[in-house]
Amino acid sequence: MRTLVDLNADAGESFGRWRLGDDARLIPLVTSVNIACGWHAGDPATMTRSVELARDGDTAIGAHPGLPDLSGFGRRAMALSPTEAAQACLYQFGALQAIAAHLGQEIAHVKPHGALYGLTIKDESAAEAVVEAFASAAPGVRVVLLAGPVSERLAQRGFPVVREAFADLDYDDSGHIIIEPDPQAKPPEACADQAEAVLRGEVRSVDGKPVPVDADTICVHGDRPNAVDIAEAIRARFASAGVRLAPMTEVADARG
Amino acid sequence: MRTLVDLNADAGESFGRWRLGDDARLIPLVTSVNIACGWHAGDPATMTRSVELARDGDTAIGAHPGLPDLSGFGRRAMALSPTEAAQACLYQFGALQAIAAHLGQEIAHVKPHGALYGLTIKDESAAEAVVEAFASAAPGVRVVLLAGPVSERLAQRGFPVVREAFADLDYDDSGHIIIEPDPQAKPPEACADQAEAVLRGEVRSVDGKPVPVDADTICVHGDRPNAVDIAEAIRARFASAGVRLAPMTEVADARG
Amino acid sequence: MRTLVDLNADAGESFGRWRLGDDARLIPLVTSVNIACGWHAGDPATMTRSVELARDGDTAIGAHPGLPDLSGFGRRAMALSPTEAAQACLYQFGALQAIAAHLGQEIAHVKPHGALYGLTIKDESAAEAVVEAFASAAPGVRVVLLAGPVSERLAQRGFPVVREAFADLDYDDSGHIIIEPDPQAKPPEACADQAEAVLRGEVRSVDGKPVPVDADTICVHGDRPNAVDIAEAIRARFASAGVRLAPMTEVADARG
Amino acid sequence: MRTLVDLNADAGESFGRWRLGDDARLIPLVTSVNIACGWHAGDPATMTRSVELARDGDTAIGAHPGLPDLSGFGRRAMALSPTEAAQACLYQFGALQAIAAHLGQEIAHVKPHGALYGLTIKDESAAEAVVEAFASAAPGVRVVLLAGPVSERLAQRGFPVVREAFADLDYDDSGHIIIEPDPQAKPPEACADQAEAVLRGEVRSVDGKPVPVDADTICVHGDRPNAVDIAEAIRARFASAGVRLAPMTEVADARG
Repeated sequence: MRTLVDLNADAGESFGRWRLGDDARLIPLVTSVNIACGWHAGDPATMTRSVELARDGDTAIGAHPGLPDLSGFGRRAMALSPTEAAQACLYQFGALQAIAAHLGQEIAHVKPHGALYGLTIKDESAAEAVVEAFASAAPGVRVVLLAGPVSERLAQRGFPVVREAFADLDYDDSGHIIIEPDPQAKPPEACADQAEAVLRGEVRSVDGKPVPVDADTICVHGDRPNAVDIAEAIRARFASAGVRLAPMTEVADARG
Repeated sequence: MRTLVDLNADAGESFGRWRLGDDARLIPLVTSVNIACGWHAGDPATMTRSVELARDGDTAIGAHPGLPDLSGFGRRAMALSPTEAAQACLYQFGALQAIAAHLGQEIAHVKPHGALYGLTIKDESAAEAVVEAFASAAPGVRVVLLAGPVSERLAQRGFPVVREAFADLDYDDSGHIIIEPDPQAKPPEACADQAEAVLRGEVRSVDGKPVPVDADTICVHGDRPNAVDIAEAIRARFASAGVRLAPMTEVADARG
Repeated sequence: MRTLVDLNADAGESFGRWRLGDDARLIPLVTSVNIACGWHAGDPATMTRSVELARDGDTAIGAHPGLPDLSGFGRRAMALSPTEAAQACLYQFGALQAIAAHLGQEIAHVKPHGALYGLTIKDESAAEAVVEAFASAAPGVRVVLLAGPVSERLAQRGFPVVREAFADLDYDDSGHIIIEPDPQAKPPEACADQAEAVLRGEVRSVDGKPVPVDADTICVHGDRPNAVDIAEAIRARFASAGVRLAPMTEVADARG
Repeated sequence: MRTLVDLNADAGESFGRWRLGDDARLIPLVTSVNIACGWHAGDPATMTRSVELARDGDTAIGAHPGLPDLSGFGRRAMALSPTEAAQACLYQFGALQAIAAHLGQEIAHVKPHGALYGLTIKDESAAEAVVEAFASAAPGVRVVLLAGPVSERLAQRGFPVVREAFADLDYDDSGHIIIEPDPQAKPPEACADQAEAVLRGEVRSVDGKPVPVDADTICVHGDRPNAVDIAEAIRARFASAGVRLAPMTEVADARG
């Protein structure tokens, strides 16, 4: 069983007048946070607040770029070309980077959101375009992709990817995650079970099939109503199992 | 009369399916280009094309952030707070920076667009918030403001501003420019006259009043239908008057 | 003291993934509801839900068009021309009308939101353009404007306006309301006091100056955290004072 | 060969500062026009101009609702549910209806745009949701769908559909049109050939396979650079073949 892993949360998903997620409590509980960058959620003021919370919580900061679909929260599949996907990620990453720089903070990683993340699972050329774009535009920044064949191939070609698994999403038999448009509360202990299963290298699909996973980071969604409880349950479970949490860049580097 | 000045153009103002301006011809004619960053115009693909044109034309690259008003092209006044104005500039600057980095290019300056530029003229605290934000987030990047009392005071406080004048816009008696929502063609020689007047240190307001100007850079709007003719007329006039063109950063540095 | 008045609420101000206001409880408490139409808040699914709540709560339905400023929730002033203001109202009204027609419901009134409402207070030509547009495009639909000189003049010229006062907003000495970008909870009894003062024909400005008001409808903002408590306090006060509530169209008709 | 048909054009696809298509010349050449409604193109001012052109050109007016994808011009597939598709159409139709009512004009039909049209071809439940929504919300309004099995089934169930074919798009072997993201000029006579083939009841796919078509209306895209030439070529061809043009509602009614 793995004893070093990153716990990451999607956060900063308020927008303008609207609030979503309890970021003030959630961000300090995770070792990496993926901050929405304005296309599916987030706006400059929200992004600024999120970076401040990450700075104060000693949480590594990542960009969380989404599809240009505010009314769909970036969770509706959209047929972007690989180039469009890569440019969308660069644009939003840069926007967050400048806002973070203003607060003296740096961006460690980038993780596509929702259906843009889904695109990198289903369309390998999209995943490749994204990692190539970051390899040239922001060499130190790692790209988070679903632990599985696509991220494996790209890692073996030398791209700086981080392999991710999910504590709070179901998997289908092909090892793909099932994205919920509007996440509901889930039993925290069940999520902790799945997080522990990830560390053991295998989760169960919704149909009971074993799905091998080899992940450096485990995700909790900040817009799930009981995200804080889930994060706390996972931390407690990991503490009792002697698992150490560290930012995903450190974990991925330790992989060698 | 000044013999060193920058000629800048607002460009990259296409959006998605829509084309605006003849950037392929205009950008190589100027020494600095301000590239729209997605809020009033521009999208990642357009921004990429604009950066490529600037790179190929050996033109210094600046960000041209606008208000979040795509249907109004950022030319309708909007009551942003100073903090909102600064964050809007940072966000859009960063977005362009990442896209430029992907092409191996750097951003030399930032110039607010339309009514956001107008805000920095009328609300000194907004101008101050913008220059302070860039001084901390992007120390080498200069902020373009209207040559006049506000930019003068900020320059004297040590902020890296560039003073700008306009060849193709009218001035009112208070020395403010009159922003046209939908620029029409103007006689190129009249624009060249005004550009030369800028170098002599004084333009005329629409009411005939003298307006002193002390500018390092002169602007041509890329969405004016005959922008290319105007840029060519100004270049020809400057060539015959022995005026040398150089990127605005070099010109502002030469001021000492 | 008036004994017949409408109580209206701004509601339907969720957007996509984000929820705002307790519409399921608030809408049945008021006699008219102003439903956000997509520009500052609201989307087709939210609009559909809001119309259903109004239908089930026997609440008269109005459109609540806003500025094209989703990130600012339509509460930042924006320099629209009178024609732009009227077209923005028509566009959003029509959108809601079609969605309501699908549910067999009709739209009784239109009330601009936030800074678009503010524009109709400060720019009489904007108010005039809006009422003229509706007089020709939707003859039976009434336009809600702030009770005061502008609405008075337009009413006397025969336009179908409804005069409005506010239970939960402060007034300045000129009789203008002070729009809060991000409304906070207010003591319900203080709002009920102000509602009662409206019925007596005079409220106090923040500086203690008397402001005469002659209003057919009184507003409660649905995005104020305790909007439901405020609406209940006003209803209780009115019930004990023998004031009858009715939709604004009926109240305005009764004025003769 | 059919001797009565409608010629329709997608138009009104400018947006804000950007112009697209030569609507002033194109709209009078067609018997029906589909006007963009703000989501993929069009804004209230553009919509107003388009309705005026249709009124002056004696052209029947239709709504042309698109996906919420301005930067992609509504031509990127997007996974909307049937309900979302229907609500998107209602919203945009209503918006145009109110703007048209202000000019004393009525909306005769609705035709989804781009990838939203594509959704009604590939997802029969989406097509059904749209026609059901209009049957209840706007009984007199016809819905334009691709001539083919889906529209045939819905017509036979009594829904007021209009069957459409394309003069300027290629067909694949399954009878689906191939949507171009960025239409290029096409030889007008080739388009006239295809229009005539439609009237004879059969076109050729790009692979040479015969595709039966039974259409009441034939489309020309207003954003194709030589759209006016194509419309003129088709009109000339039809005139010489004794084919009469009439608005699609009249043509569909004549089908009985």
